[in-house]
Amino acid sequence: MPPVNQRVLREHHLALVLRHVASQPGPVSRADLGAATGLTRATVSGIVDELTAGGLLSEVDPLPRNGAGRPATGLALATTGPAGLGLEVNVDYLAAAVLDLTGATRVLCTRHRDQRGRSPRRVLADLAKLAAQAAQQAADEGLTVAGTVVGVPGLVGGDGLVRSAPNLGWRDVDVAGALDAAGAGLGDLRVENEANLAALAELHAGTEAAPSFVYISGEIGVGAGIVLDGRLLRGARGYGGEIGHVTIRPDGPSCRCGSRGCLETYTNLEVLLRDAGLPLSTEDVDDPVARLAAQAQAGHASTLAALAQAGTALGIAAADVVNLVDVDTVVLGGVYARLAPWLAAAVSQELHARTVTSAWAPVTVRAAVVGTHAAIVGGAGSVVRQILEAPATWLARTP
Amino acid sequence: MPPVNQRVLREHHLALVLRHVASQPGPVSRADLGAATGLTRATVSGIVDELTAGGLLSEVDPLPRNGAGRPATGLALATTGPAGLGLEVNVDYLAAAVLDLTGATRVLCTRHRDQRGRSPRRVLADLAKLAAQAAQQAADEGLTVAGTVVGVPGLVGGDGLVRSAPNLGWRDVDVAGALDAAGAGLGDLRVENEANLAALAELHAGTEAAPSFVYISGEIGVGAGIVLDGRLLRGARGYGGEIGHVTIRPDGPSCRCGSRGCLETYTNLEVLLRDAGLPLSTEDVDDPVARLAAQAQAGHASTLAALAQAGTALGIAAADVVNLVDVDTVVLGGVYARLAPWLAAAVSQELHARTVTSAWAPVTVRAAVVGTHAAIVGGAGSVVRQILEAPATWLARTP
Repeated sequence: MPPVNQRVLREHHLALVLRHVASQPGPVSRADLGAATGLTRATVSGIVDELTAGGLLSEVDPLPRNGAGRPATGLALATTGPAGLGLEVNVDYLAAAVLDLTGATRVLCTRHRDQRGRSPRRVLADLAKLAAQAAQQAADEGLTVAGTVVGVPGLVGGDGLVRSAPNLGWRDVDVAGALDAAGAGLGDLRVENEANLAALAELHAGTEAAPSFVYISGEIGVGAGIVLDGRLLRGARGYGGEIGHVTIRPDGPSCRCGSRGCLETYTNLEVLLRDAGLPLSTEDVDDPVARLAAQAQAGHASTLAALAQAGTALGIAAADVVNLVDVDTVVLGGVYARLAPWLAAAVSQELHARTVTSAWAPVTVRAAVVGTHAAIVGGAGSVVRQILEAPATWLARTP
Repeated sequence: MPPVNQRVLREHHLALVLRHVASQPGPVSRADLGAATGLTRATVSGIVDELTAGGLLSEVDPLPRNGAGRPATGLALATTGPAGLGLEVNVDYLAAAVLDLTGATRVLCTRHRDQRGRSPRRVLADLAKLAAQAAQQAADEGLTVAGTVVGVPGLVGGDGLVRSAPNLGWRDVDVAGALDAAGAGLGDLRVENEANLAALAELHAGTEAAPSFVYISGEIGVGAGIVLDGRLLRGARGYGGEIGHVTIRPDGPSCRCGSRGCLETYTNLEVLLRDAGLPLSTEDVDDPVARLAAQAQAGHASTLAALAQAGTALGIAAADVVNLVDVDTVVLGGVYARLAPWLAAAVSQELHARTVTSAWAPVTVRAAVVGTHAAIVGGAGSVVRQILEAPATWLARTP
């Protein structure tokens, strides 16, 4: 029994010390660490040495003098060493980001191109190239990719297979296999729904301990990540959060999924552009969302009408989420974040009218704080979180 | 440290032994217990003595001889001693049930009466009387009520207050306080949404370790309990599962909640009775659901049309649940259980058309296995479960 307890204790201490450093706004002294964790000076010293040797902590400039004595060396999360790589395939772009242990985005690469009609093999070969560029840029800054998460606008099975990404036209695509075949050599890799990753980014960006919200991600498709008490709700088979296919009107417009009247048919970016009189292909317009916002700002009637209709549909679907899983916040993400000034009122109105608890349990509607790159930030951030939460596992991997 | 570990160890052993006995279809010998738990004969003996003295286990007739030697005494869950009391207020009835440790329903009392328009105080005074009768009948059989759970067709806050039960016309009702004032003297009491309790009953009745399903409870109101990986999903503030107020058609009929086009407006029992040409008040008909079923069985056209329309609306709402939280089973409960033969096909059809995962992750539709009294069985059962899961807590309460 004793060896097991020693191991468990060490793992616990490593995580405790690392978490304390991560939670502080500035560098932390060894003395502060002892006071905050209740560990002896000798234990703190041993743990700090191990974390420093493993590249997770670094010593920084001495802290300002606090009374007498010589200044203490400060400890902070390393800004070189292990990092997370987030990749994303979306309908009209590919993207990659590298985050260091502090959660700072150190590398960001995007390629705008309509991916529809292209074979998954070609799309993923391009993504492999982008990943290699991002990893190289990270290496130039002294960072090592510790793990990769790929976000896709579709349904990902427990086996990592993309079962369906209707807006890309994908069925049963082995993303990890295709990236490997393209020579990406990314090692530890996970595939995840893009809205789930964006919701994780929003979760990590906040200060609340265990928030509950639905993050609605608007792109060419519409998805959601539901966070309940600080945890992503994936559902029994991992396919939860498909708000884009919640029924708004049973006999509404046909949806790419084969059904009718899905939320997505009222609110996806292409519908908004069409109704606002803007070109349908997102390649013809440099930043179509900026154009939409500018027209709305200028009081363009059909743009305002399109956004109001989308807001109403989003509100109906959001009210379904609140009635069913009782979250207290609706986050407008993806392109909806920038359009929130023209969507939020209609969303709030429907939430107020349609949630049975609205009289005493109000729901907040707000724009996402993490920007357009939420999915890659969430993906890369989840790699970093994993290291911070279980540093012993990472240290065991390093020679 | 040692005293803490001894206490934790004892609690663990008590629960381990009790759970093993509970999981077996017949009596268990001390030798079987040792083999199944890995505990020494002396430890098993001490733990069994404690559980027997505390009224949780009882010795039963010797098991059939297994080879040579004298027959071993069998151990089984006690059928006297601690029991759970489940109470329910619903729109047209009050009910009480007592379950023993084995989960058997030992007492069942119901009173049919329309509770609408009556003051909560009067309704709860009647419920207190019913509770007293049930507790007396239980005492006559050697059972002691260890805890009480009250199910209500409404929204229950974390403080146990019924914030709103629209079909009863209740707002901010202190059920526990009113029962106390009526002299019920029920001690340890919890108030819970009736659909959540019915879902728990269905969960406990099954054999699957961690099932995921939405239990849709049809009464005068319509509610749901969502079970994900074997756990009830209550939501951030405890108000989850309000499927009755999921929007089917944004401009549909007015709902008692103040909104329009809620599921409940298409599928509640009164709508079904009206559309089938049966009297609206449930007091005029002995068993209105039996009448509905009989008319459907006889091929009565408007009854079949009403049930088909209800099934379609239930299917649309169920598809929203599957898209959002990805459960793999839809359980038709309450009055829907008996009407399932005429509802299930339409529910399945909408699920197939409207869940984005239907091609590779099908959803099963079935009638509830627990009958009309699911809420009281679930409530009483959750008291019993609590004792089985933490017997040390119960033993500490007994003199």
